[in-house]
Order: sequence, then C-alpha cells, then structure tokens
Amino acid sequence: MDEFSLIEAIKQKQKTYKQSSLQRGIGDDTAVFREAAGELAIAVDTFVEGVHFTEKTTDLFRLGYRALAANFSDLAAMGALPMYYLVSIVVPHRMKESKLSEIFNGMKHLADRYNADLIGGDTVSGNELVLSVTVIGQIEQGKARYRNLAEVDDIVFVTGTLGDSQAGLYILQHDLESVHRQYFINRHQLPVPRIAFASSLGSIKRLALNDISDGLGNEAYEIAEASHVSIILDDKKIPVHPGLAAFPMGLQEKWKYFGGEDFELVGTVAKKDWQTVQQAAEKLNLQVTEIGHVINKDEHAVYLKKNGNMTKLQKEGYTHLK
Amino acid sequence: MDEFSLIEAIKQKQKTYKQSSLQRGIGDDTAVFREAAGELAIAVDTFVEGVHFTEKTTDLFRLGYRALAANFSDLAAMGALPMYYLVSIVVPHRMKESKLSEIFNGMKHLADRYNADLIGGDTVSGNELVLSVTVIGQIEQGKARYRNLAEVDDIVFVTGTLGDSQAGLYILQHDLESVHRQYFINRHQLPVPRIAFASSLGSIKRLALNDISDGLGNEAYEIAEASHVSIILDDKKIPVHPGLAAFPMGLQEKWKYFGGEDFELVGTVAKKDWQTVQQAAEKLNLQVTEIGHVINKDEHAVYLKKNGNMTKLQKEGYTHLK
Repeated sequence: MDEFSLIEAIKQKQKTYKQSSLQRGIGDDTAVFREAAGELAIAVDTFVEGVHFTEKTTDLFRLGYRALAANFSDLAAMGALPMYYLVSIVVPHRMKESKLSEIFNGMKHLADRYNADLIGGDTVSGNELVLSVTVIGQIEQGKARYRNLAEVDDIVFVTGTLGDSQAGLYILQHDLESVHRQYFINRHQLPVPRIAFASSLGSIKRLALNDISDGLGNEAYEIAEASHVSIILDDKKIPVHPGLAAFPMGLQEKWKYFGGEDFELVGTVAKKDWQTVQQAAEKLNLQVTEIGHVINKDEHAVYLKKNGNMTKLQKEGYTHLK
Repeated sequence: MDEFSLIEAIKQKQKTYKQSSLQRGIGDDTAVFREAAGELAIAVDTFVEGVHFTEKTTDLFRLGYRALAANFSDLAAMGALPMYYLVSIVVPHRMKESKLSEIFNGMKHLADRYNADLIGGDTVSGNELVLSVTVIGQIEQGKARYRNLAEVDDIVFVTGTLGDSQAGLYILQHDLESVHRQYFINRHQLPVPRIAFASSLGSIKRLALNDISDGLGNEAYEIAEASHVSIILDDKKIPVHPGLAAFPMGLQEKWKYFGGEDFELVGTVAKKDWQTVQQAAEKLNLQVTEIGHVINKDEHAVYLKKNGNMTKLQKEGYTHLK
C-alpha cells in the first residue's frame, strides 16, 4: 500500500463527517472547520517506540487507541469534548505500510465513541516509529477547567484507581501471571479517557482538573503551583485496585504516586459542589474518591499524611512539555 | 537545560499573547482559544533528520524557520492567516537540549511577522531528530481556497520562480560555488510563505490555490483531479531564476516541474479576475506569472506544451498525507 492508497483508505467522504462544523477534512492543503459558540481546546502528544512503547507492551491497534486516549484525556482535563484529530507518523523503513492501518483503526475505534473526525496528518519515513497526535475539542463558554482554579478549603478528588497502568506494563514487561493480569493489561493498553465524567460537570462553575498522565504527585503539584495553594493528600484514602496488593510494597507506592498514564482525573472543587461531583460519577458508574484538601501555605507544595506523619511529597517522573 | 526550564524559556506570559482570542497558551492540559467569526484552517507537517534535512543542509535555527514556513505555506494555500502553532520534537539522546532553543528561535523569527503564538507542544527523547508542527489559521467566511474550485477557461498562474529550493539544496549537498550560491541557499533554507499575497486576494470570490511543496507537476495534478478538469502548462512560460541555467538541463527540468519545496503558490482564477491577481502581486513586489489554462478534458490530467508538442506530464515525487 503506497501513501496515496493509505490516504484514500482512511479519509472520510464528506457526507460521512460526524462533526457538522467540518467543511473539509483530509484531502486539501489544510482541514477547514467553521467556528461555533464557545472555546476551543487544542493539544499535541508524541509517542516514540522504545521510549513510550515496545512491541512487547502493545500491538499497533492498541498503540493507536492509547495515543488518542492520552490526547482525549488532556481534553477531558480541560472539560472539552473531542471534535477532531490529526495524526503524524514516522514510519520505520522495516515496517510494512499496510500495518499503518491498524494504528488508524485503533484510533478510529476510540474516536467513533465521541464522533471525532480525523481531519489531517502526515506520514514520513524514518528509522523509528513516532506517532504524534493533535486533538481539538470544544468547551462550553467559561467552563475551561484550568489548573490554576483551585482554592483554599477545596476538596481534592480522583477518579478510578491509581497505579493500574504501571502494574499492567510491569506484567507485560516481565511476562507475569496474575489473577488480575488481563484487568491491569487492559488498564495499560486501553485506558478510558474521562471525557463523559468531565463533560457532565457543566453545572459546576469552578473546577480545577488535571489528567494523571505523569502520576498523582506531579499533577497535584501542578495544581498547587498554578493556583498558589498547597495540597494535603491522605495516603489511606488513595484508591487502588485490590489486585495491586500482590506487588512489592515499593512498587505499589511508586505506581500510586508517580506511575501515571492511568489517565484518571485529579481535581479540586468547593465543598458545596462535592455532592454534584459524586452524583455525576455515580451516574456513569465511575468511582470518585475524596483524597485530600487544599490549604493556604506559602510553599505551594503537596503534602502526604501517612501513619500520623505529614511529609512533603517529592516531585518525580518525566515532565512533558504542554 | 531540562525540559522544565525549556518550557519556562519558550512559553509566553499571558500579557504577551499576540492573538487576542487566546485564553491560555502553554502551561495547562491544552491551549484554549475563543472562537471568532469565519473559519479555521489546521494542518500538520513532520520533518525527519536524514529524510527532510541533514546537518549539512541546515542549522537548527533555519530548520525551525523552514518547518514553520512549510506549514504557513499550507495556510497561505487555503487563504488563511496564521494564528497559532504547536511543536512536537523528538530529541536525539546525543543532542544537547539547550540546542533546542535554536529551533524555537527560528520558528519565532517567522511567527512574529504574522503575530502567531506558540500555544503548545511536546518534547520527548528518541534516536533521531523529528520535528512535527501543527498550525492553525483563520479564513474569512466563504473564502477558503480549495483545490477543487478550478473551472474551465481559468488562467493558471504561479508566484515567484520554480526550482530554486532544489538548486540551493544541490549546492549545499555538493559544496558548489556559484554566482547565485547564497540566493539559492536562502531560497532553500529561508523560504517565504506567500501569506501576504494569498490574503490580499480577498476580493476575488473564487480561486483555487495549492502551495508547491511537492513540485508544480504534482500540485497541478491535484487541482485537475479535485476540480475534474485538465490543465495545460506552457513550458516556455514557467518562471525560473536566470541562475538556474548554470545547472545541467536535466536537473533544471526536474527541479522546475518536480522539485517542490519552493513554497510558491499555483492557482487558477477566472480571466476577469486575473488583473486583480497581478495588481495584488505588484503591490507586494512579488512576481506572478500566467503559465497555462484550464480545459475541459475527461482525463483530469496535466499537459505540457513544449516545442510545438503536447505531452502528458508524468506524476512524480513523494506525496505527503494531507
């Protein structure tokens, strides 16, 4: 399959566009879409073979799915609904181009749930597989969930359970058997971006949100620093899957606070709105847990309450340029 | 310089945003901008070391400049004005991260001319340098310059001269001396996207435009196929720089029709609007040349009139996924 056939294979006919604002998708110098009311969110994320994934940890379908999920997770953390995505791929010379369609199929599988259209991209050859995804979403006017919106006395919460993705990666890398093997692997390979949850919180006026791509510790720090507040997390409240207990304690701790890539959301909200958050999660059958609160402290740091002690959480892990 | 310092170094303070619609640039999960009247154009292009450039053919400043220029050229071809750009870079392990700022400086040099803001990106490590740029521009409502808008009897025109970029690349690759050495090198390394020209044609209702990234032949074919017409090009009218005559005839021909990366524009326009096009170019001190016309022929092909003969132009060169 040459590149021209690939374009023909993946490009949507105009009448199949899902977004009514789309004027022109793939097939011209740029995509064109009409502007609607509200605000637009845009983000890009890049994934490199050997750094973010290997043949051992994913197939190409799940690679595509997960790359788009990571980007949709950024949209969720801004309170945005996905509309469009663009994909750049550096294709290794050794790789059959026909394999590329599996990556696109994985992305489409996720995109279709949100009626998001693929509207452009670029494929070029190189030595290693690089996947770069740009996403565009729409936000209700004034409802962007910036990370600098946390206020003193807010409740700090997270969705889902933390550390699952790293457990799944560990299982794949070490060929481990485990009762919860498939659960953890799915959490690593097929994460669900919390779009539905974030977009169901529209009635709440002020909300700070971050998606947990780099670990709870880093994301909480980003909120604390941007909002000029400090955050106290209660170790015994951090939600984890029961199966995590089967791993060495050191790994459990690491994955919980610094693992990342669960693509859950951490947020802060006024106490008066906490019930609304809980009800929204319940409707979606999604776990949401109060894990701490926001305090006024000059350091703009994250503190961990554990066994009666209070320690400052260290920042760790890789920081993406966002 | 770690990645965090790099972000701090390149991110703009809110009060320095050039685009008034920008709500939030770098520094949160996504960038956020308010929608305005009109339509938005978006495109992405990716550049790989060893494929699109080498240390011999560019320094990092010019690499950044050229990557953004190639993207802005896509916006020009859609009649769009640049507003925003996002940058993903795969940084080779051997490369000092401080070098990265040169790439960003090169982009900023061009972006500042159009008041375009850098609003996001991603840097990750890998084995080879990969630069992926996403651009967003604004189009006056109903004035998108789609390539399917050519009509029978239209005049076909190009801006500037063709083949210069390939001549510059050849000079760099072969360490050639030439009277016009610096001219050709500049045309390769520092191309000027034809934004000002394209945006000054707003009074023309219908206009088909393509930027010449893959050679005149390919771009003319794209217009012919999308518009269901055929195009006749007159060989003796194709504008070239006088210095091109110093190169072997075979190379001249190749560069003129299939060289590409001059980032000039090829377009078709009704005869009644041709004078408007010429006047717009004259105001910008830009060369614009009538090189052929659009005919009604079932094949949807591009024909070359040369020495009294008419031959079908062969498609050649690499087709990007757009």
